[in-house]
Amino acid sequence: MPETFIYPVEALKDYVARFFTALKVPETDAHIAADVLVAADLRGINSHGVIRLQSYYGDRLLRGKIHPAAPITVLQENPATLALDGSNGLGQVVAYRAMSRCIELAENAGLAITTVRNSNHYGIAGYYAMMALPEDMIGISLTNSQPLVAPTFGLPAVLGTNPIAVAIPAGEEEPFVLDMATSIVTIGRIAVHHKSGQPIPAGWGINEQGDLTQDPAEVLQGGALLPLGGPAELRGYKGYGLSLLVDLLSGVLAGAAYGAKVGHPADHGAADVGHFFAAIKIDNFRPVDHFKSDMDDYIRALKATPKLPGQDRIYIHGEKEAENMRKYQQEGVPLLAEIVDALVQAGQAAGVPFDLKPL
Amino acid sequence: MPETFIYPVEALKDYVARFFTALKVPETDAHIAADVLVAADLRGINSHGVIRLQSYYGDRLLRGKIHPAAPITVLQENPATLALDGSNGLGQVVAYRAMSRCIELAENAGLAITTVRNSNHYGIAGYYAMMALPEDMIGISLTNSQPLVAPTFGLPAVLGTNPIAVAIPAGEEEPFVLDMATSIVTIGRIAVHHKSGQPIPAGWGINEQGDLTQDPAEVLQGGALLPLGGPAELRGYKGYGLSLLVDLLSGVLAGAAYGAKVGHPADHGAADVGHFFAAIKIDNFRPVDHFKSDMDDYIRALKATPKLPGQDRIYIHGEKEAENMRKYQQEGVPLLAEIVDALVQAGQAAGVPFDLKPL
Repeated sequence: MPETFIYPVEALKDYVARFFTALKVPETDAHIAADVLVAADLRGINSHGVIRLQSYYGDRLLRGKIHPAAPITVLQENPATLALDGSNGLGQVVAYRAMSRCIELAENAGLAITTVRNSNHYGIAGYYAMMALPEDMIGISLTNSQPLVAPTFGLPAVLGTNPIAVAIPAGEEEPFVLDMATSIVTIGRIAVHHKSGQPIPAGWGINEQGDLTQDPAEVLQGGALLPLGGPAELRGYKGYGLSLLVDLLSGVLAGAAYGAKVGHPADHGAADVGHFFAAIKIDNFRPVDHFKSDMDDYIRALKATPKLPGQDRIYIHGEKEAENMRKYQQEGVPLLAEIVDALVQAGQAAGVPFDLKPL
Repeated sequence: MPETFIYPVEALKDYVARFFTALKVPETDAHIAADVLVAADLRGINSHGVIRLQSYYGDRLLRGKIHPAAPITVLQENPATLALDGSNGLGQVVAYRAMSRCIELAENAGLAITTVRNSNHYGIAGYYAMMALPEDMIGISLTNSQPLVAPTFGLPAVLGTNPIAVAIPAGEEEPFVLDMATSIVTIGRIAVHHKSGQPIPAGWGINEQGDLTQDPAEVLQGGALLPLGGPAELRGYKGYGLSLLVDLLSGVLAGAAYGAKVGHPADHGAADVGHFFAAIKIDNFRPVDHFKSDMDDYIRALKATPKLPGQDRIYIHGEKEAENMRKYQQEGVPLLAEIVDALVQAGQAAGVPFDLKPL
């Protein structure tokens, strides 16, 4: 087992907020960004959590590539639609405010869509979709991202891993929270295999020649991730279509960058990431209690489906993550040694030493 | 090459409309249903076209299982949301009217969602999404369907092939039209291999024991289709999540049947299929000409991506289908001998002999 250290949740959030505040992010915004980042670790999605504090966010703030106190401007507003410009602010802050506005609009209009241009990497897509849950709404959160995925029959990578997140409330059961990259795996998953010297399963990525490879280094150096589905025979062009769809809604509709033009956090210029948020008020379609009762019934029926040999459980999307969250909220959040190292380095760069004691 | 016969498009539509009229479908509705069915053949999606005239629609009308002149009733209406009951009408007619109303609402509200309960199989999902294109809107069309897909780690099939269709206009380029089952392939594709005695690629389906099989008969008899992505290692649970998502929006939100409760066209009772439609007015987010110009630029960039060895073209979703449609509109629509046989049988059952002469 790799070495892990357990930290109290509130202290970790407080540290991340202090980190952002030191980089001139206003206090309220710093707490929003901290909550989003730590939520990823709480849900067990460490690849998108505090491990990226410096590499995706702190570094850009220090280099002046993200505006720490960006004014979000309204481009167009109607009762059910809102187009925003994130003014190159922190993705988490821009996205949180955009989804908050979307939910407010949907409270009156029954549904709403908010697009955002000129933003940055916003962390886990599911965070913003889940903001709709307490309002008895369905939340949708899409974003484009830097090119890492090859279109079917092509190379280099010209599409992002462009995630789809949708959160749908249930009654007594956990809500359905789908939060998926439209590639088979994210680049972080390839990097983990590379670091540990493990081959990757055939199908995850291709090398510079366009052949399937099990060597993660070949994917990272001139290769590309494959879209969900994999090769054409197994309908990888559907995953390619989903990745493109997300980009058309969050990039092109928002008036942000799209395709190969979306910036990587390590790039010199503005990333001009685009987001798409939607909120749908369930009550506008049927009584919320009927809806939730059917959700519970459906979820229970799925979980009661006979299992394949060797399997003892059928999962609903978001269920494992909700279990992690409940457990880690109580017991503290576990971070691998390499994540703690990343926090120590981030703290040095920002002049905010990472001084938390593990439990 | 299998034997094909070419029919003039309008004559074929006229025949299908006469078929429906003979089964007590009002004339206007019969023409709507005919247009949807023939559009599938025009786009090259023969599995969802007139081959199903009798088995999916005529047979149910003859048995009194579909209401030929169903009144569509409004359950709830607001400026941007509409919940309908299809009163067990023909899926094509119910869906056409529901999407028409959705587009009307979106004209004023900037976007709209319409849900439908108590409907039937509606043919190709993409037809309704594409209705938004001439209005400079983005169209979305989702439906649930009878259980054919196993959830990850489970069997039997409890999920439909629940398609996702999204149509997005471009400028000079073809529109983006994604129209995909959330399973790797549809059951029709398995049946085609079964009929021709060909094995299926490993990954498309599992047998009664839950093992991957290349024998199409095993998938059809007690096995199941796999969701997009395939096995867990290649992230089949994402396809499972997409299938479930479509059902939660078109089944549960609409108040229709869901999961294993959705009826098969051959079943005795009402199918209670659910649909979900959305229309998004582009002009509410950015000027339409800017949007279309970016669409063209993006599509051209994708098509200019260097090709893998042995490949000479990168496709955009809906491009091949648009090419088919243009060609077949001019030259007539090609139907395989087995499709013509199905039409002859349908004509006999309904008392409307299939009397068209091929070109």
